[in-house]
Amino acid sequence: MAPGGAKKNILERLDAGEVVLGDGGYVFELEKRGYVKAGPWTPEAASEHPEAVRQLHREFLRAGADILQTFTFYASDDKLENRGNVQSFTGKQINEAACDLAREVADEGDALVAGGISQTPSYLSCKSEAEVKAIFMKQIEVYVQRKVDFLIAEYFEHVEEAEWAVQVLKTTGKPVAVTLCIGPEGDLNGVSPGDCAVRLVQAGADIVGVNCHFDPVTAVKTVKMMMEGVGKAGLKAHYMVQPLAYHTPDCNCQGFIDLPEFPFALEPRVLTRWDMQKYARDAYDSGIRYIGGCCGFQPYHTRALAEELAAERGFLPAASEKHGSWGSGLEMHTKPWVRARARRDYWEKLPPASGRPHCASMSTPAGWGVTKGHAQLMQNKEPTTQDELKVLFGKSVTNQ
Amino acid sequence: MAPGGAKKNILERLDAGEVVLGDGGYVFELEKRGYVKAGPWTPEAASEHPEAVRQLHREFLRAGADILQTFTFYASDDKLENRGNVQSFTGKQINEAACDLAREVADEGDALVAGGISQTPSYLSCKSEAEVKAIFMKQIEVYVQRKVDFLIAEYFEHVEEAEWAVQVLKTTGKPVAVTLCIGPEGDLNGVSPGDCAVRLVQAGADIVGVNCHFDPVTAVKTVKMMMEGVGKAGLKAHYMVQPLAYHTPDCNCQGFIDLPEFPFALEPRVLTRWDMQKYARDAYDSGIRYIGGCCGFQPYHTRALAEELAAERGFLPAASEKHGSWGSGLEMHTKPWVRARARRDYWEKLPPASGRPHCASMSTPAGWGVTKGHAQLMQNKEPTTQDELKVLFGKSVTNQ
Amino acid sequence: MAPGGAKKNILERLDAGEVVLGDGGYVFELEKRGYVKAGPWTPEAASEHPEAVRQLHREFLRAGADILQTFTFYASDDKLENRGNVQSFTGKQINEAACDLAREVADEGDALVAGGISQTPSYLSCKSEAEVKAIFMKQIEVYVQRKVDFLIAEYFEHVEEAEWAVQVLKTTGKPVAVTLCIGPEGDLNGVSPGDCAVRLVQAGADIVGVNCHFDPVTAVKTVKMMMEGVGKAGLKAHYMVQPLAYHTPDCNCQGFIDLPEFPFALEPRVLTRWDMQKYARDAYDSGIRYIGGCCGFQPYHTRALAEELAAERGFLPAASEKHGSWGSGLEMHTKPWVRARARRDYWEKLPPASGRPHCASMSTPAGWGVTKGHAQLMQNKEPTTQDELKVLFGKSVTNQ
Amino acid sequence: MAPGGAKKNILERLDAGEVVLGDGGYVFELEKRGYVKAGPWTPEAASEHPEAVRQLHREFLRAGADILQTFTFYASDDKLENRGNVQSFTGKQINEAACDLAREVADEGDALVAGGISQTPSYLSCKSEAEVKAIFMKQIEVYVQRKVDFLIAEYFEHVEEAEWAVQVLKTTGKPVAVTLCIGPEGDLNGVSPGDCAVRLVQAGADIVGVNCHFDPVTAVKTVKMMMEGVGKAGLKAHYMVQPLAYHTPDCNCQGFIDLPEFPFALEPRVLTRWDMQKYARDAYDSGIRYIGGCCGFQPYHTRALAEELAAERGFLPAASEKHGSWGSGLEMHTKPWVRARARRDYWEKLPPASGRPHCASMSTPAGWGVTKGHAQLMQNKEPTTQDELKVLFGKSVTNQ
Repeated sequence: MAPGGAKKNILERLDAGEVVLGDGGYVFELEKRGYVKAGPWTPEAASEHPEAVRQLHREFLRAGADILQTFTFYASDDKLENRGNVQSFTGKQINEAACDLAREVADEGDALVAGGISQTPSYLSCKSEAEVKAIFMKQIEVYVQRKVDFLIAEYFEHVEEAEWAVQVLKTTGKPVAVTLCIGPEGDLNGVSPGDCAVRLVQAGADIVGVNCHFDPVTAVKTVKMMMEGVGKAGLKAHYMVQPLAYHTPDCNCQGFIDLPEFPFALEPRVLTRWDMQKYARDAYDSGIRYIGGCCGFQPYHTRALAEELAAERGFLPAASEKHGSWGSGLEMHTKPWVRARARRDYWEKLPPASGRPHCASMSTPAGWGVTKGHAQLMQNKEPTTQDELKVLFGKSVTNQ
Repeated sequence: MAPGGAKKNILERLDAGEVVLGDGGYVFELEKRGYVKAGPWTPEAASEHPEAVRQLHREFLRAGADILQTFTFYASDDKLENRGNVQSFTGKQINEAACDLAREVADEGDALVAGGISQTPSYLSCKSEAEVKAIFMKQIEVYVQRKVDFLIAEYFEHVEEAEWAVQVLKTTGKPVAVTLCIGPEGDLNGVSPGDCAVRLVQAGADIVGVNCHFDPVTAVKTVKMMMEGVGKAGLKAHYMVQPLAYHTPDCNCQGFIDLPEFPFALEPRVLTRWDMQKYARDAYDSGIRYIGGCCGFQPYHTRALAEELAAERGFLPAASEKHGSWGSGLEMHTKPWVRARARRDYWEKLPPASGRPHCASMSTPAGWGVTKGHAQLMQNKEPTTQDELKVLFGKSVTNQ
Repeated sequence: MAPGGAKKNILERLDAGEVVLGDGGYVFELEKRGYVKAGPWTPEAASEHPEAVRQLHREFLRAGADILQTFTFYASDDKLENRGNVQSFTGKQINEAACDLAREVADEGDALVAGGISQTPSYLSCKSEAEVKAIFMKQIEVYVQRKVDFLIAEYFEHVEEAEWAVQVLKTTGKPVAVTLCIGPEGDLNGVSPGDCAVRLVQAGADIVGVNCHFDPVTAVKTVKMMMEGVGKAGLKAHYMVQPLAYHTPDCNCQGFIDLPEFPFALEPRVLTRWDMQKYARDAYDSGIRYIGGCCGFQPYHTRALAEELAAERGFLPAASEKHGSWGSGLEMHTKPWVRARARRDYWEKLPPASGRPHCASMSTPAGWGVTKGHAQLMQNKEPTTQDELKVLFGKSVTNQ
Repeated sequence: MAPGGAKKNILERLDAGEVVLGDGGYVFELEKRGYVKAGPWTPEAASEHPEAVRQLHREFLRAGADILQTFTFYASDDKLENRGNVQSFTGKQINEAACDLAREVADEGDALVAGGISQTPSYLSCKSEAEVKAIFMKQIEVYVQRKVDFLIAEYFEHVEEAEWAVQVLKTTGKPVAVTLCIGPEGDLNGVSPGDCAVRLVQAGADIVGVNCHFDPVTAVKTVKMMMEGVGKAGLKAHYMVQPLAYHTPDCNCQGFIDLPEFPFALEPRVLTRWDMQKYARDAYDSGIRYIGGCCGFQPYHTRALAEELAAERGFLPAASEKHGSWGSGLEMHTKPWVRARARRDYWEKLPPASGRPHCASMSTPAGWGVTKGHAQLMQNKEPTTQDELKVLFGKSVTNQ
């Protein structure tokens, strides 16, 4: 691969029709490894345990990721203070350390570094556009100074705040991507995915899409609605998708956070590598070219994306040296019926069992009465507007 | 903690009534991280990518493990050659590198290093006692030279071979532990868990138990049968258990290898941290004091053991700085119904859903006819003897 | 109740805003009782075993049915010959016997008798409008002669054939109801439920709706789409719904016939009486006033409809003398935890388990590849057009 | 068939090695048909609606039943008064009517009539042996006077009371059968199935076995334990089994009554006809020759037993004229993929789905805490003694 300075930037890659693979879910994976606390989900490990963050970056790179996102989720000062979980390092130190780690590993390969910002408590508490933009601006300073390759505004539930984020990011001159954490029902004010995307492109985003909150099937469906909206408006954009690695057919408009299993009992929902290959194909066939992951993604999930799209990309990732395509590593197994699993047909069709006698396929999102939730679920109808949510919960649900 | 030389050895700890926590499943976890190939499952990563192995050791240590096992599973020369997966390093180099990595990290804390040997192809192909013992002896040389703290003979399906292993390990003068990968039906020749344990204690083992192949419920049940047998024989021993992190109520006597999901679609079966706390309590209440894990264990699983037994052990593991007991990290969540999950009662009772509409709770072990398997399963009866297996499969099933 | 001659007719009842309850699924229930053969599904039992048919009529009457349909499903001569299952009786004899049985029992109460016709093999084999209408005409002669109270054209997959049926039925001067066996995707030519309903009202139907093929949730949803279409067209009609008593969230546009369990393994899908009460409420709240059932309905299901709507109807059915509302019959049970089930809240919220370890919640409709079906199901998308079906199956699927 | 007087009696049939089929579950089926009230479960319908009882007798006869049991469950005077559900008829009238109905239909074929008695409230409230026996004696008078062919003492939870019943029944000189409603754990005092059977044979029973409370797999297993006990004691007997038509792998020692779904949401557990064929084969292979059913059995279930054992019995039942073996009735279906189901292999292997997204395979028996129940279930251990039950529930559980 080319040395860092000579790397093609994100837009050159997408304009050339390349498939660009994102990395995975740092906070969830590092929580399982013992370095992030569920609840606050803050990234102080960048300073406290850099070797753990470096290693996970390396695993995603090795699995085929073309982008390494700085480990800076929720790393704005107000958030860090708010959660009261960090003592020894300033927000600036954490952000700088995270940039340095991502750059170090990215330059071991041909990967780019993306710096990210997310929705703010300030917006939810009705601060002004100027105040919210000032917060974004402060976060971005480190990214510019540390020379990240491009910027991502991600994890926004309201398109208005995302527009403001894009406007601020555009001032850097770097390419700007933006992803909302919404599903087909649209943002929490009921703006449809198509309309959201149009507004974000008009705000200057080069790449639009969704991340987190929903499973791959739902996320791809949502991005397709975005593409349709942008197309109808006579606009153009690149598209990206970074869904959960959890099956979530049963969640409401606020996504997996409202599932009763969030965040400590999601295990039975984890996608297999074969589920991931379906997702990669589905996203590619839909015209999406920046394909990555969010919470729940482990390096082998990313590798599965790279293997499914190896023909389109022209190469297998480094980690495939340790992975036989479609189970072919079982060809030498001593038991004939295990050897018989060394084929695509077997893994593609296998419906895995849960091993849990009390395991149902779906659960009722939190806050719904069982009967109500069941009835709505059976009708594929969910409470999507703030008004409906107020009726269900007796008050507004996002701003407390 | 004390410097390496001053550490209490494994028998001193167990004799003093301490709870000793084992580490987790290196090959499965490193497979997901991209460094081990499923099928061969060989540990060449110790030489090829030492940083990855070192990091996983560190995570288990941080999660509370008192023992770090050398990453040497299937690292005998014949196995390595057999699998044809390793080119650049000799078996000796791999074994040495693995010992050095485990020692380096163990000495960052108060942990001990255990070197391990497993069942051999030679035994299955009916080589003589002398030949099999010679193979064991060769493997042990590195461990003695690298000064591991004690030895584990693990993953044996036939008690006879395990006896031979124990006899060889005893020649080193180090403490010897031995675990069979069997369930309540006994070893593959139908020797009951109780009889197996008696023979292993008589062969000189200080610690006996089971590892791999079955879920915690089944594994603890099996060790209890061992305890009963040893007690009835008027003997004494310490006990250990290192089960899977997968729910496997539906597997036959050969364990999870015969489940159709093995090894690439086991995700829905992964135990949650709360399942792990039940396991830790169950094992402790059964009188087992060396409690660890095998395939499927990630560091957060080990931490859950350490948290459940924190009162008995007198301390929380380092990684608990990033984990609120029983979900207490959610106390500050913005949504009231997510905050309401910050309590033991919630997580203890929650039956997680799979998110998979086609997900059943059990599957039929491979190699069984559906009808046959179903009928037997419904009767809680499984083919346990070689004779029965021969009838089912038309030939012997272990030696091909 | 009034003697037969003085009964209000179906339109007087509906015009007065009364809730009219239909009866249930004769062919499926009599198959279980041993009098109908699955496959042919022909009604020769009306002549062969009149006591069995009479008893089932009586049970539905006693359960609250206001309508008894003549047991004449598939009783046209061509069908009876086609299926080769009937030897001793002519089609005319069977139809006459069925009319007499329904009348005898209906006059034990205040119920009306409805005579029915269904889709014909002739239409599917592309016979002309005149030929198809001649077949309908022949079937109707017996109903007119035996003085049924009104007529139902039911179980049509193509709206065009249903229009022809309505036109023929209108010539009798009796009230005419018509139900298609379609879901929200519309008829097998892709005509939407709304458009179907408009065409049927324009053809002269007094009552329109759906029967068979889908579960209550889907059926009510489909009738609501019909109501919307009729309303938008500025027309008026009464509405009826007669769904399955099976949960079928997983079936494609052709309904439960394409489920792999059809017709001999549908047991785990049977609705409980509490599910039925939800259905009755749901249908009523949607504005439907003719509420009945089809395949799978047993008398206790019909009674549940009558009990849910007892306040609206002003009375409980006769069979409620043997049924405590919402489990109140358990109030005297000897076990306190069974007594505790004598309340609405308990039964409304209870999610029943299957008792089957291999039971998934959904299955893949027949004829779909597993992968294809799964992918589509996960996206809530089904092959709905003939073109898509041809692609899937390699040929047209309705006409063979 | 021979006229009534010439029929072979039950012991002649069994001594000759014939397979004798029992009938099914009258109270549960008549509850669904609207003639029995769940809770009291009393049989006043014999007098109130004789046509409904006669019809169900006829359906079981037609399905292959060799025995028709009088519809007299819980028809002792004290029970009828206790439940306060019957006004117009005396217990004597009901018992007489039931005997007459069974005899009328039995003589339409070659079936025998069996009169039954069950456990009494008197025993549970600690009345003396003399008092309990007096109650039995009174019930038997009608059976003797109405000339039933033999007697069954059924549905006993305590072997002691069953012994008393057998002793009383023997005084009539008629053949005596006795079935306990117990599982492998034994009676509610912890007497094992083997010991129970020995005591009942010693008390004079000609036929012993189990009925109700558990599914076929469990019931057959229990009878096999009885056979083993009787054999070891050097005694001889005939054996019978009349299980539920519900899958109940998850119930505790008191059977399906403690399942949360009892009695109004058991639908998803109903056995298919193919499940029934497995049961018939399993019972036959175990050496049981009186094979019948209890709660949940419908006529088609009984027919399935008769079809599975048609070769052994030498004939198909009358109702098989309306049933194609193993789905062969589908051979003429218009859809090729439905036609493809007309074969044994298809139905034998099909795992039916529930159609219920929230459906788990098992539920936790009532009265258990979720965690407790789960833990015990996972260990296949249930509270079996009165002492354990007292601990769980705080008091004795059978006598309130």
